[in-house]
Amino acid sequence: MNHYPEAVVKLILHLCRLPGIGEKTAERFAMYLLTAPEQEVAALGKSIAELQKKVKICNTCFCLSDSETCRICRDSARDHSLVCIVESPADMAAIEKSGAYPGVYHVLQGLVSPMDGIGPDEIRIRELVKRVASGTVKEVVIATSTSVEGEATADYISKSLKPYSVKITRIASGVPMGGELKYIDQVTLKKAMEARRVL
Amino acid sequence: MNHYPEAVVKLILHLCRLPGIGEKTAERFAMYLLTAPEQEVAALGKSIAELQKKVKICNTCFCLSDSETCRICRDSARDHSLVCIVESPADMAAIEKSGAYPGVYHVLQGLVSPMDGIGPDEIRIRELVKRVASGTVKEVVIATSTSVEGEATADYISKSLKPYSVKITRIASGVPMGGELKYIDQVTLKKAMEARRVL
Repeated sequence: MNHYPEAVVKLILHLCRLPGIGEKTAERFAMYLLTAPEQEVAALGKSIAELQKKVKICNTCFCLSDSETCRICRDSARDHSLVCIVESPADMAAIEKSGAYPGVYHVLQGLVSPMDGIGPDEIRIRELVKRVASGTVKEVVIATSTSVEGEATADYISKSLKPYSVKITRIASGVPMGGELKYIDQVTLKKAMEARRVL
Repeated sequence: MNHYPEAVVKLILHLCRLPGIGEKTAERFAMYLLTAPEQEVAALGKSIAELQKKVKICNTCFCLSDSETCRICRDSARDHSLVCIVESPADMAAIEKSGAYPGVYHVLQGLVSPMDGIGPDEIRIRELVKRVASGTVKEVVIATSTSVEGEATADYISKSLKPYSVKITRIASGVPMGGELKYIDQVTLKKAMEARRVL
């Protein structure tokens, strides 16, 4: 890497920090950026540098937003009594893409993970309890991942919301669509069997 | 993607231009950059924006450089009568990493490729001929890729340099080290057989 000019070496080192990017790919990006149209490169640099200043966090659901309150929280056509709890803005975007959800969201910005020193107070659970306590919410759908941390967080939230008269649901676990049974792990199959439904 | 704020969408679109990066990976980069330390993100943005301004092209070998003449061309310990011809700065870096080359370079900045409308005048062949004509070069090693374009370019260079009293060599083709014979393609095997040497 020290066969390149200093500016290129510096860029490669910065690009290496991106998730899943090693030195080889970073080098490839740098070579591309060196020969790409000047305007395009400047625009990319600017949009990275400005990103954190321009993006706000919604004061209601804590998702990424252009303004104080996000587009979804401002939308009167959405069902504000139905709140879906997700770990991150990316999870929220995934559910939005499915087009199957008419309610609003609550983005935890993390999962309870004692191993990483993240307790319930480090994520937005307190704000969720306050939101439910205000009485406007009729159902919360817990849509955290089905990982150990996701399940633990779902458990914790479910216990925290018990005192309130709110329906608490969890997204279904089971065989993914298009999945071949023989390749599905045993825990998923067990869950799918337990949650079988009458046709 | 339109479930994200405008600044995020813009960044994702810019990142999608990077080679081999699709919308999913760009989204992952954007999510990382949103939560990464502010200083790190600013540094990345700055080094991208400044890249093309800071990096110069060496006036002798046309590789990337910090100054008018590159570190290798200025190095009196290198053999300036031996010139290795490569397609790109990345190829040059690969040869430098091998540590097996004591001479200097000539970076073509492309290969002859009639299909893409790139003729010999679009790449730095004229400058190479001039350099050889000056009389200081004793040997040129043509180290373009062994692709169709690389071979065609090597042929063209070899013909262009014929009138001058310079030794013209081509890097060896053959079975790569650690390669299993049964998985090597037939053309490579044929070349390796033709170029067999006495032990």
